[in-house]
Amino acid sequence: MIAAIDLGGTRTKFGLVDHGKVMASLTCPANAQGSLEGHLDEVLEHLRALCVEQRTTLESCEGIGVLCTGLVDNRAMKVLSTNGKYDDAVGFDFCKWARARTGLSLRMDNDARGALLCEWCYGAGQGVDDLMMVTFGTGIGTAVVLDGKLVTGSHFSGGILGGHILVHSEGRQCTCGAVGCLESEASGWVLPELIRSHALYSESSLRELDAIGFEELLTHAATGDACASAVQEHCYRIWGEALVSFIHLYDPQRIVIGGGLMNSPEPVLASFRETVAKFIWGDPGQVEIVAAQHPNRAGLIGAAALFYAH
Amino acid sequence: MIAAIDLGGTRTKFGLVDHGKVMASLTCPANAQGSLEGHLDEVLEHLRALCVEQRTTLESCEGIGVLCTGLVDNRAMKVLSTNGKYDDAVGFDFCKWARARTGLSLRMDNDARGALLCEWCYGAGQGVDDLMMVTFGTGIGTAVVLDGKLVTGSHFSGGILGGHILVHSEGRQCTCGAVGCLESEASGWVLPELIRSHALYSESSLRELDAIGFEELLTHAATGDACASAVQEHCYRIWGEALVSFIHLYDPQRIVIGGGLMNSPEPVLASFRETVAKFIWGDPGQVEIVAAQHPNRAGLIGAAALFYAH
Repeated sequence: MIAAIDLGGTRTKFGLVDHGKVMASLTCPANAQGSLEGHLDEVLEHLRALCVEQRTTLESCEGIGVLCTGLVDNRAMKVLSTNGKYDDAVGFDFCKWARARTGLSLRMDNDARGALLCEWCYGAGQGVDDLMMVTFGTGIGTAVVLDGKLVTGSHFSGGILGGHILVHSEGRQCTCGAVGCLESEASGWVLPELIRSHALYSESSLRELDAIGFEELLTHAATGDACASAVQEHCYRIWGEALVSFIHLYDPQRIVIGGGLMNSPEPVLASFRETVAKFIWGDPGQVEIVAAQHPNRAGLIGAAALFYAH
Repeated sequence: MIAAIDLGGTRTKFGLVDHGKVMASLTCPANAQGSLEGHLDEVLEHLRALCVEQRTTLESCEGIGVLCTGLVDNRAMKVLSTNGKYDDAVGFDFCKWARARTGLSLRMDNDARGALLCEWCYGAGQGVDDLMMVTFGTGIGTAVVLDGKLVTGSHFSGGILGGHILVHSEGRQCTCGAVGCLESEASGWVLPELIRSHALYSESSLRELDAIGFEELLTHAATGDACASAVQEHCYRIWGEALVSFIHLYDPQRIVIGGGLMNSPEPVLASFRETVAKFIWGDPGQVEIVAAQHPNRAGLIGAAALFYAH
């Protein structure tokens, strides 16, 4: 059994995972404005309570697996950058903390790599040595396995910055400082702006909504709203073309697609397969494009998988 | 000593290479409209003559190393696609040919991977486990080493299709069938079109030229020609932004830049370093960007290096 912690942007998920099975799990607010150490201590108390429910103890677990956003040194088990979350996170000694509190060893990595590990070990990526995972959500997360090894690179950013490849050299300003990134052209966070700046927005039923996510976009597109349809088509096209770039750079055997879109995966998968078949350099059918099997538990299963796949 | 053959688009280079040193070399027309077997037989006769000059024999070489454009199965040593060169190339049994003619073993790979091998083993890429090479010429060639291993991927295209990543989703038609590829936005083959379609072309001194390559572009830009300067700036910007995409995807420690531009490398390297520092996610100085050390002999040295680095 592994004690798994997935430090998200607004919520932290934690639980007990046994060989790819989540035995018990809970969530709590991330409190990312406060101290990481205090937050981890709080999570640990919750985990101890879960252990009691499972008739075990935290100390009898094999270890603690942690995922978080940002850059993670997955050898020294330290956070290198967090985009402003937890002012004590960078340089925090996770292993020392785990040893002092529990006597357990700890492993950690970036959350996109964790999601890939989950699918690689227990989901839609099983049996493949060259694998990519792309998660479409508020941002766009990517991670890659090549030749049976997780791509890490020289500064721990290898494979995980796929949301920040150039896709439109005259495009929109991205939060990362560059222009025309995949994320700034088509992602959850830019979606409201894409919609409101569209020529057909003034006639769109989307105007009545306070918050617009992909679910609302697809629902309104399905009812024939022209603005919603056009923005959906724009996103599908950019994402499909970005997949072609990824394929041309990594040459994977399979790409696993994750994120909220995968609640009804077939239309978007069909669109991706069509774009890839049209633009790929090589056999149009050479890359399998499939939906993630664990979209909602990837964080916990992936955090635990750090003990099996690293 | 290795007998090295670099099958180019218009010319074939061949020679004798001893641990990274070209002992003797020649070129001949590629005859890419004819038969590959006939061409290789012809090259072999030239190589035998070079051996006589070097007071050795072809049979006493350690092997034959071959590079060519297109997709190459570097395990079975076969060409998978050639873009129309040599109608008997795809499926040709190079090893059988080498054994029958010389008794020697043969290794082969794509020419961009060969150029990287050359620099990795004997040039500007030495001592680095995460390395990328980008060659700017008529097309744009790329190759990658991650974690001390040449990236090959699942279909032998891993790392070598960097010229065909999307950089402008509303851009120009590329020869590969896609739109807005790095090559179709800024490369040797699209340069004449970039210049002639520029608003300032009608007043440009470039109008007097029959053929325009990067050398002419840079010369005219240096004399203050506004059209040449604008197109140069466009190419430098797109290339620098594409380097940022490559860095975000592979996270190399060093990028080696090759190609004709490297005759006077400092201005373009300075431009690349500036763009990367501006847009990189991470430490602006974390990636070394350096010029290739063997721009003119990379093919032969790289073909021979196949016997040491694979």
